[in-house]
Amino acid sequence: MKIGLLTSGGDCPGLNAVIRGAVLKGVISHDAEFVGFRKGWKGVVEGDFMPIERHDVRGLSKQGGTILGSSRTNPFEGEGGGPENIQRMLDENGIDAIIAIGGEGTLTAARRLTDAGLNIVGVPKTIDNDLAATDYSFGFDTAVEIATEAIDRLRTTAESHGRCIVVEVMGRHVGWIALHSGMAGGAHAILIPEQPQSIDQICEWVESVRDRGRAPLVVVAEGFHLTDMEEAHSHKGLDAFNRPRLGGIAERLAPMIEERTGIESRDTVLGHIQRGGAPSAYDRVLATRLGMAAIDAVYARAWGSMVTLRGTDIKTVSIAEAVGTLNVVPDARYDEARILFG
Amino acid sequence: MKIGLLTSGGDCPGLNAVIRGAVLKGVISHDAEFVGFRKGWKGVVEGDFMPIERHDVRGLSKQGGTILGSSRTNPFEGEGGGPENIQRMLDENGIDAIIAIGGEGTLTAARRLTDAGLNIVGVPKTIDNDLAATDYSFGFDTAVEIATEAIDRLRTTAESHGRCIVVEVMGRHVGWIALHSGMAGGAHAILIPEQPQSIDQICEWVESVRDRGRAPLVVVAEGFHLTDMEEAHSHKGLDAFNRPRLGGIAERLAPMIEERTGIESRDTVLGHIQRGGAPSAYDRVLATRLGMAAIDAVYARAWGSMVTLRGTDIKTVSIAEAVGTLNVVPDARYDEARILFG
Amino acid sequence: MKIGLLTSGGDCPGLNAVIRGAVLKGVISHDAEFVGFRKGWKGVVEGDFMPIERHDVRGLSKQGGTILGSSRTNPFEGEGGGPENIQRMLDENGIDAIIAIGGEGTLTAARRLTDAGLNIVGVPKTIDNDLAATDYSFGFDTAVEIATEAIDRLRTTAESHGRCIVVEVMGRHVGWIALHSGMAGGAHAILIPEQPQSIDQICEWVESVRDRGRAPLVVVAEGFHLTDMEEAHSHKGLDAFNRPRLGGIAERLAPMIEERTGIESRDTVLGHIQRGGAPSAYDRVLATRLGMAAIDAVYARAWGSMVTLRGTDIKTVSIAEAVGTLNVVPDARYDEARILFG
Amino acid sequence: MKIGLLTSGGDCPGLNAVIRGAVLKGVISHDAEFVGFRKGWKGVVEGDFMPIERHDVRGLSKQGGTILGSSRTNPFEGEGGGPENIQRMLDENGIDAIIAIGGEGTLTAARRLTDAGLNIVGVPKTIDNDLAATDYSFGFDTAVEIATEAIDRLRTTAESHGRCIVVEVMGRHVGWIALHSGMAGGAHAILIPEQPQSIDQICEWVESVRDRGRAPLVVVAEGFHLTDMEEAHSHKGLDAFNRPRLGGIAERLAPMIEERTGIESRDTVLGHIQRGGAPSAYDRVLATRLGMAAIDAVYARAWGSMVTLRGTDIKTVSIAEAVGTLNVVPDARYDEARILFG
Repeated sequence: MKIGLLTSGGDCPGLNAVIRGAVLKGVISHDAEFVGFRKGWKGVVEGDFMPIERHDVRGLSKQGGTILGSSRTNPFEGEGGGPENIQRMLDENGIDAIIAIGGEGTLTAARRLTDAGLNIVGVPKTIDNDLAATDYSFGFDTAVEIATEAIDRLRTTAESHGRCIVVEVMGRHVGWIALHSGMAGGAHAILIPEQPQSIDQICEWVESVRDRGRAPLVVVAEGFHLTDMEEAHSHKGLDAFNRPRLGGIAERLAPMIEERTGIESRDTVLGHIQRGGAPSAYDRVLATRLGMAAIDAVYARAWGSMVTLRGTDIKTVSIAEAVGTLNVVPDARYDEARILFG
Repeated sequence: MKIGLLTSGGDCPGLNAVIRGAVLKGVISHDAEFVGFRKGWKGVVEGDFMPIERHDVRGLSKQGGTILGSSRTNPFEGEGGGPENIQRMLDENGIDAIIAIGGEGTLTAARRLTDAGLNIVGVPKTIDNDLAATDYSFGFDTAVEIATEAIDRLRTTAESHGRCIVVEVMGRHVGWIALHSGMAGGAHAILIPEQPQSIDQICEWVESVRDRGRAPLVVVAEGFHLTDMEEAHSHKGLDAFNRPRLGGIAERLAPMIEERTGIESRDTVLGHIQRGGAPSAYDRVLATRLGMAAIDAVYARAWGSMVTLRGTDIKTVSIAEAVGTLNVVPDARYDEARILFG
Repeated sequence: MKIGLLTSGGDCPGLNAVIRGAVLKGVISHDAEFVGFRKGWKGVVEGDFMPIERHDVRGLSKQGGTILGSSRTNPFEGEGGGPENIQRMLDENGIDAIIAIGGEGTLTAARRLTDAGLNIVGVPKTIDNDLAATDYSFGFDTAVEIATEAIDRLRTTAESHGRCIVVEVMGRHVGWIALHSGMAGGAHAILIPEQPQSIDQICEWVESVRDRGRAPLVVVAEGFHLTDMEEAHSHKGLDAFNRPRLGGIAERLAPMIEERTGIESRDTVLGHIQRGGAPSAYDRVLATRLGMAAIDAVYARAWGSMVTLRGTDIKTVSIAEAVGTLNVVPDARYDEARILFG
Repeated sequence: MKIGLLTSGGDCPGLNAVIRGAVLKGVISHDAEFVGFRKGWKGVVEGDFMPIERHDVRGLSKQGGTILGSSRTNPFEGEGGGPENIQRMLDENGIDAIIAIGGEGTLTAARRLTDAGLNIVGVPKTIDNDLAATDYSFGFDTAVEIATEAIDRLRTTAESHGRCIVVEVMGRHVGWIALHSGMAGGAHAILIPEQPQSIDQICEWVESVRDRGRAPLVVVAEGFHLTDMEEAHSHKGLDAFNRPRLGGIAERLAPMIEERTGIESRDTVLGHIQRGGAPSAYDRVLATRLGMAAIDAVYARAWGSMVTLRGTDIKTVSIAEAVGTLNVVPDARYDEARILFG
């Protein structure tokens, strides 16, 4: 078989390990051939790909990013888009199947293309850990590790100056990175999209920490919202193009906390360092196993399926069933962590 | 309630995080009191303990080792040993329950003491990940991370000199650390206790790597055995006290590989660095959750039970059912990794 | 002797190692007694201090921040301020000398107090490495290491998406952190306060990188200024309190680069993570040696002197001569690095 | 000019950064051409080299090892060895000059070849920091950092079990790595080749630590010798080939300490992990600067010179004057550290 690989959407640590796992398994076990589509679906729609030989994946398991590049192109749009055009491109190039590594959007597109007859298998990618079909997704552990290391560092400087530090981590719709890094780093409050809080509640936690003689450390997911949005709006400014700006949530929370509690407060936004660089060992193992399992799914001709982690096992599930449900932090997990607040 | 904590057996990263999780949960949710027995069961048998207040666990989640100390004392032996003596000591000091953090031996002892009427709850500790009752145990992820980082480093020096490097990791009875760190580090052979191999097979893998122009990297668990023990014995020497010595497995394998393949070979034994230092974020979260869940088990008076990880959930299981089964690497997991050998 | 220690100004990794070095050297070699003033000169002015015993400094060499706390209090101001009040407080408490660990401001104050008769020895602290009297100051190496690790991570995500990333590091008046981390991380442009550049020059570097098929990585010190400030101003907005805001330099540069070159650009501000957490081994050794040498200076009654690094030696110099000269990046060092730009 | 590069002797972190610095500087500033000799002088003697283009050094600054390979071949031996043969090979291939990156042996050979008329410039490489001509050599800082991190980890497990841990670090003739990592890690005794100690003195330090309630941590350089060698010999065994073996120094010291003090003792040998993997930021900067300065020396036709670090400056010195003096740890530096022992 000749198999095409693509990585789509925001990158995260482990993408290259998936590619390596798939290529080694395919070449060694099945004598498969591989090509890599450049920049996700864009390469598919434009027929832009390169051969991938065994030696091309050498040393990739520890390399961050994706050697294939990525984009947010929609495979149903543009001149070469849509199932027929794509199938024609595949036929012309003798490509038998596609392994699509991506998030909710990519997997949904993969399913629709599979419904239209294409041979596609999915590998879930979400650094936020927001896909319900898999216990954990690769990249998440690395992001938590990086955020935890940052929190460890921020705590010592917070204590030296008796400051409150608000650190913003990734998590647009779900708070997993904030929950785990906050728990690991011993945060005094963890604010996540699933659990809006009032500024009063947050300040209560912060003051209780100060009253015990410590420097408060607040971890906030970028998608967190205050219950009382009035407060948020009163702190908006204008952005670089003179449009109203809200700024990141940490940038807004820090002055609100300082104003209400009198505790000098600073914000830090971890940003892109959470998604770059070498994956943790956990993520390398998970990504390698998912890549290898995707080859099994290809040779089982399980089109429209995706590989996932369940407990300690890699399973194959139907994309149709897998997507569409956001993997939110359950109340029980937040309540468990909340005991440690304040 | 007044709850006694103990840590027993070889230490591993996360013990302090369990202690912190238990104490914070107990103090905040139940207004519990805590004491810590010094050096595992030794402190129980000798009635040697210290109070643990909330502020004593401050900052502990990231601290390696155990503030309580550890030993391999058997609670059924010695003057203060056995259920009656221990119960008397607990009564005299108003201690209502014990949370025992330890491995197979500690948990079995805990079960026997519980059978005799003592109030004990267990928390599984095994850096080797050899307890079948839990998907993963804390300390394991950290050990894998440290071993993987070492392998990453060893590869560059191996390549510079065209050498074969044999790196020995922990794993007396099971090969989980070798399997995961080897997979994460892209090892060319992974040797584990569950899967004895012949020296011929190992050299075949090593030569195949050399023939592709690369420097072979072999990861071996300390408990691995060759199928052809004659070979091993022919390389024994004498130890520091003039007794016959086998040396570690890596120390024996490296010269055998060099002798047979002609490839210059070196061994490295990671040893104690795998069990010391700050736990990974993964282990901190797992250990904190287990510590908190142990308090739930205490207040549910679930004596004789232990807390475990299943998928993403912390569960409570009966120690009686949980111990006695070694968590070996399944054939399927080894076969999965073996494809990448050579 | 009874010696008082204080740490003043912004904290940085290594302060605790200085304290430990001084206390161990003093206790072991001279049987000295120690107290620590809380929050820098504030503790001196208010007579607020605590005893420091040998066991209090245990494990401190690797601990970030300062156990004494810090502030920006001026010792010449307030009720207990000024040389006479301070001398009276020292006499009343039997304190014979002060070791002041701080930056330009603290050292200048120390010199003035020494001129007025007080027994003070200085230890230079500047994470920016902006004091000319010492080859390197502790904290700097750690900051460079953290910034370099961040740059390593940012590069992989930049490459995956073909983006330009502008990363802002510390350096208000001098560009040492940017220079070293940029050189270590292989940055394509390094922008420092000592070397203003035009936006046209920056975009020329960025485009040249893109033309070679790579993702541009720009490191900018927080104190960098464009030569054409009009450009900067056209991108200003309003801050959270509706006052004109300039934002950080990275936040302003990224959209300017994107607008002019058409390359998608992102900014990341490393902020406080650069000054927190465990010091590098280099900084621990330097800080320990400086702390020990400060005791030598105290027992040599070299009041008004400070300890510094020259080559591989710790020297003692007069504060009066040492302060007042900013340790700027010399043109030759910038030219050396500039060859690698673009 | 067409310049040949070679790396010789044991590898260390930063070799690739030197190569990258030299190639970028040469290509950008002088439009130079580069070739790399494979495996040190072996490639020179055998005329075995490969072209190095600008894109070949991409990303090299953070990569451990050497892309050129290394060996311990002597350029005066073998069929193609000696100045005339080498000059002929260079002439035949149009190679104008050689940059030789290596230790004492390589530099001495380079000087002799220069004396015979060859155009060679040297870059000092010694992970042990044993060359007197340079304040520090690249690779040393990384090795110290790795050893310090290991010591940090070993301390927590030592404390948990009340054990003495003896950790062996590199340093055959000089004790710099032991001195710096021991100081950074807060070791209770540092044993270096320059300062033989008796086993009685070592045990006195160890017992004093135990008496203060702590777990002793001893750092020993591989080249350390006891003053009373009888002791050492009484602990020898036989090696794998039945020849008398001494084992490593740590392996011998641990049982001696345990026997005499009654404190359970363990040894750990860090070995090859100290010389592999990504260089620290410090080493990347130093190596890059040395590589660039080597090009300056080439274009200055400063044959027979080598580049070195003096304070914060890169200087050029004559190899003839530079080699031959071992950079031992001065007594003053050992005395400084020794105060902290016990």
